Amino acid sequence: MEKKYNYKLKLSYIGKNFSGWQKQPNRRTVQGVLEEKLSIFFNEEIKVIGSGRTDAGVHALGQVANFKTNSFKNSEKIYRYLNATLPRDVAVLSVQHVPLSFHARFSAKGKTYIYRIYTKPDPFLFGYGWYISKKLNIKSMLSALDLIKKEKDLISLSKKGEYIREDVEIREVYLRYDGSIIEIEITASHFLRYMVRKIVGHIVQIGLGSLSIEEFENIIKAKDPSKGLFIAPPEGLFLKEVYY
Amino acid sequence: MEKKYNYKLKLSYIGKNFSGWQKQPNRRTVQGVLEEKLSIFFNEEIKVIGSGRTDAGVHALGQVANFKTNSFKNSEKIYRYLNATLPRDVAVLSVQHVPLSFHARFSAKGKTYIYRIYTKPDPFLFGYGWYISKKLNIKSMLSALDLIKKEKDLISLSKKGEYIREDVEIREVYLRYDGSIIEIEITASHFLRYMVRKIVGHIVQIGLGSLSIEEFENIIKAKDPSKGLFIAPPEGLFLKEVYY
Repeated sequence: MEKKYNYKLKLSYIGKNFSGWQKQPNRRTVQGVLEEKLSIFFNEEIKVIGSGRTDAGVHALGQVANFKTNSFKNSEKIYRYLNATLPRDVAVLSVQHVPLSFHARFSAKGKTYIYRIYTKPDPFLFGYGWYISKKLNIKSMLSALDLIKKEKDLISLSKKGEYIREDVEIREVYLRYDGSIIEIEITASHFLRYMVRKIVGHIVQIGLGSLSIEEFENIIKAKDPSKGLFIAPPEGLFLKEVYY
Repeated sequence: MEKKYNYKLKLSYIGKNFSGWQKQPNRRTVQGVLEEKLSIFFNEEIKVIGSGRTDAGVHALGQVANFKTNSFKNSEKIYRYLNATLPRDVAVLSVQHVPLSFHARFSAKGKTYIYRIYTKPDPFLFGYGWYISKKLNIKSMLSALDLIKKEKDLISLSKKGEYIREDVEIREVYLRYDGSIIEIEITASHFLRYMVRKIVGHIVQIGLGSLSIEEFENIIKAKDPSKGLFIAPPEGLFLKEVYY
């Protein structure tokens, strides 16, 4: 039987505490934790659909999900119930009653991810960024990022063996540096698995002087995930926003 | 025998992981962790003096300490050794060779503390702020803070039974609110124990409408620590800077 109501959730969670988004037996996952609480609240089995999986360790500032139900409940009540009962490392930022056609993954028009690197010891950023104490050449990193903007086929910077839906349209790429923290922000139509972590993994090698921009260009042109070897650790990655 | 060299440290640490600053048997304290590593590095017993104790759970963004040694070591080497060997929840921001007369506590001319309240669920702030979901009247909180600026004897807002050195000179009080996070920043000649937490504890009661500004004024005028009942939790408090 088709369920009758559809809700959209906006979520924030600390990725390092979860084995990723997707439900798996005997693992603590964000989807698992949400479905457990929602099934109790609605007194029916609830399946939560995310805008995409975040890998183990990847954080979310604005993940979006939806779920369908047989009974109608006030959005504000769902919001309050979830925030009162969910563990402290996941929070619901908003709950919205939406048309049945809304699908967190298929309706998504784009996403923004942020990757954070910190270059000075900071206990408050441990687990929330990639600590690199060696000197980075920010200028070369910026030039390398320019390559990303122009190229649509970024399969070399994706996980080997993953299905690729289509060309990626990179809409915006920023690098901010305040002398201590580097933030790379990428907005695209969608993201291949490991894409941001591989982009950052490679531009960091360029910043360290271990990889040249020409070598990086050749890796991209090879269109072969096994050529893109450098993967930044998950704890620096934040899913910032999903657009509909 | 008088030691010959004196070093100044600037430190950051996650307070909730420690039983405060001051060394105690069988407790994990910041002073204890630092003395352990420094005694190994210098191969002599090192005693670290903090600008002041931070209580259990209180964070530091810029705590200052000093220690004396018999042998001279390069500051940069001390910095690198400490950051390589200290646990990840404490970081050394700088090491400086200073005159023997420098004393982290007695030479301090002032300090800045920040207290953070967050009003929307945020897993990244859990343990790094006081979560208050009820509506707060920011305007009344600001008016209450004005009282603090004018008053030198804040003994009602200190811990009962603690020795009071002298009048406190409050230099600056700010409240910042971005619609989600409230930060109260106080700069003073020195701070009585529990002072910031009691100031915040009371202005929050005022913001909630459970205490009037007149009642608060009477509490201050009573000059009695047993009258100041409201203490904000330690996890919202950050020692930001110490001035010399």
